[in-house]
Amino acid sequence: MKAKVIIIGNELLYGRIRDTNGPWLAKWLDNQGIELEEILIVKDDEKDLLDAFKKAWASTELIITSGGIGPTLDDMTKGLMAKFFNKELIPSKKAEAIVVENYKYYDRSWTPELNTYHHIPKDFIVTPNPKGLAPGLVYQEENKMIMAAPGVPRELQAMAEEEFLPLIKDYFKGRFEKKYRTVIRTYRVPEEKIFGELCPTLWNDLSKFGSVSSLPQIIGVDIIITMSEKDATKNEKLIKEYIAKSNLAEHVWQWGNEKLPELVVKEALEKGIKFSFAESCTGGLTASRITDVPGSSGVLLSSLVTYSNDAKTNILGVGGQTIKKFGAVSIETVEEMVVGVRDKTGADLALAFSGIAGPTGGTPLKPIGTLALSWANKENVNSEVFHFSGDRERLKLRFSEMGLFKLLQMIRDY
Amino acid sequence: MKAKVIIIGNELLYGRIRDTNGPWLAKWLDNQGIELEEILIVKDDEKDLLDAFKKAWASTELIITSGGIGPTLDDMTKGLMAKFFNKELIPSKKAEAIVVENYKYYDRSWTPELNTYHHIPKDFIVTPNPKGLAPGLVYQEENKMIMAAPGVPRELQAMAEEEFLPLIKDYFKGRFEKKYRTVIRTYRVPEEKIFGELCPTLWNDLSKFGSVSSLPQIIGVDIIITMSEKDATKNEKLIKEYIAKSNLAEHVWQWGNEKLPELVVKEALEKGIKFSFAESCTGGLTASRITDVPGSSGVLLSSLVTYSNDAKTNILGVGGQTIKKFGAVSIETVEEMVVGVRDKTGADLALAFSGIAGPTGGTPLKPIGTLALSWANKENVNSEVFHFSGDRERLKLRFSEMGLFKLLQMIRDY
Repeated sequence: MKAKVIIIGNELLYGRIRDTNGPWLAKWLDNQGIELEEILIVKDDEKDLLDAFKKAWASTELIITSGGIGPTLDDMTKGLMAKFFNKELIPSKKAEAIVVENYKYYDRSWTPELNTYHHIPKDFIVTPNPKGLAPGLVYQEENKMIMAAPGVPRELQAMAEEEFLPLIKDYFKGRFEKKYRTVIRTYRVPEEKIFGELCPTLWNDLSKFGSVSSLPQIIGVDIIITMSEKDATKNEKLIKEYIAKSNLAEHVWQWGNEKLPELVVKEALEKGIKFSFAESCTGGLTASRITDVPGSSGVLLSSLVTYSNDAKTNILGVGGQTIKKFGAVSIETVEEMVVGVRDKTGADLALAFSGIAGPTGGTPLKPIGTLALSWANKENVNSEVFHFSGDRERLKLRFSEMGLFKLLQMIRDY
Repeated sequence: MKAKVIIIGNELLYGRIRDTNGPWLAKWLDNQGIELEEILIVKDDEKDLLDAFKKAWASTELIITSGGIGPTLDDMTKGLMAKFFNKELIPSKKAEAIVVENYKYYDRSWTPELNTYHHIPKDFIVTPNPKGLAPGLVYQEENKMIMAAPGVPRELQAMAEEEFLPLIKDYFKGRFEKKYRTVIRTYRVPEEKIFGELCPTLWNDLSKFGSVSSLPQIIGVDIIITMSEKDATKNEKLIKEYIAKSNLAEHVWQWGNEKLPELVVKEALEKGIKFSFAESCTGGLTASRITDVPGSSGVLLSSLVTYSNDAKTNILGVGGQTIKKFGAVSIETVEEMVVGVRDKTGADLALAFSGIAGPTGGTPLKPIGTLALSWANKENVNSEVFHFSGDRERLKLRFSEMGLFKLLQMIRDY
């Protein structure tokens, strides 16, 4: 079963905001066993929108749109859907009841003077909005379905889960085919070297099990094999045996799809390990990524973001002489930082980051992208200087990823 | 002048990764004065890609594609562009020279055994890749241009800036029209109330100056008027006079497009103010957002991420009795946190956050979404309990945004 997504909004096309609904719907449809063929981002423009509806309606089975169903004058999705399907916009008792209910959720009352939420195109289905005011709209005809959701992500998500999914399942009964993906995560070998030198037949050999893709990541390359769910157990076993005998074996650090922060929290929870960070150049990003994971309060004690040199001294106890002699971005400073945060917070494991994220502050010896990283358990302190490239935000992410990778290794060795 | 963007990659359509090239190109094209009409995200599939090229080539002047020009078997952009334009793929001396140069940048040497980067479609222009290995491809015909860039964001960005832009400027001379946007940022009035009750004629009145859009934000609604750059000064003055006389005046907290972290850093730098945070529920996100801004090292002293209760006591000096009696999420605790971090780091201004980001940990009295926020200068400590909705990541962002809003107000009152 196939679907297309249409994301509507001018502000997405001049770069003011980033669309998050497309990626969310992509993952959500995949989980339902529905193949997403394309995501189209278009303007609030009559011609462009009608054209988008026309092309999608002619070429797929399910269309989900996001945006343009609110109360302001640039909200034109409803009107244009009515026009496209040649349906009159009419007041609907059912829509009115739903809108009144939506408003009640926010302790507000709806009147027809506020907006025309109660008008819907004839023959359309209207759905509640579990997290907002504007109702959803659905139209089905000739084994095809189009569904209009709001652009606000939490509203779209709740509407998709609670309102759209039952309608989809009912209308497209038995048409779903769940996919399974094996992810082979490799470490520090470039994509080209894997497929060119190390394992020249890898791509073709893996293609026997499903469709292969390769995705360079921050600390290595992910190789993904997508297959039908029914063959997954058998195939994954065969793939693992194949990889174990291949030249790639020693470069694989994980099978699976979990992000590093999720893995770190999961494996630390399993072993009852508590950790802390001292962050300078990463500025709290490492802690923020860890605290995005539910359950992280069981493993993260503290992260001391010591951005200024004074804070490194006052908060972490780094010697003023150390910073003066070796610089803030040095093995010597991060090793004092890591010991400081470990002992101050009573952590089992600790990381300390000091580096140069740019856009200024680089020197010939310590260019932008330099990271001094230290990792410690109760007995040992290790450290290394790394060099990465990228802009400020990218560098912060790479620095933090390298730290979490070292942390994961310490957790596994614990 | 109009453009379309085509983003290529299976992994974007089952939600494994989020596209960042579309949003970056959107902003970049807007800065050049080129109107982006749509972003299409498609799979690595021959039929879909040829179809996408055909539709875009028939309906716009400039097409930029991202992805599919690397060395693996799913990289099919080059071959399909050759097919679409009916051009033979041929070895090119110029391409070979560029590829050899690209590899030299990484201290590597290229040989024809590694890949077929030196093959390009006949009549295509080949460009260096300032940050990677695969060269870029450009084709121009009948006042139209198509440009193929790699999918890796830093490579695409450097190629667009350094290689594509001069070609675009040369080919489409004088066709650019820069846009200017006035952004009216309002505080704590819902969109519907602004346009429905407060200022019913606002949308139409503002439409006289340019195209209007309205965008709900974390702490209010942004109203954006897009106009031609040549009328900007005159129009903006008239809009400001109009708003000053309107019912919206008291709800406007900023004119402009800068994000809160950028504003906070800029205005604190201007006044020579240093600040620190104590973060519990936001887990370092507030510091990370501030440190995304270049120059933040001049204003952020420290952020102490005290996730555990012990850390709140040991690092910030919060009384164990305070937490026991009032709970970690309470006015009493955040006020001790804010004083602790302010005094410990010698900051002029400080924020402290303690709240419940979920998905568990809520209670009837303190449900998920509760934030105890405290803000302090050298003399006074203030605090308030807020309630937000959203998932864990969304809540962290809302909590942090509310804190930064209070910080901005303190900076302005300083």
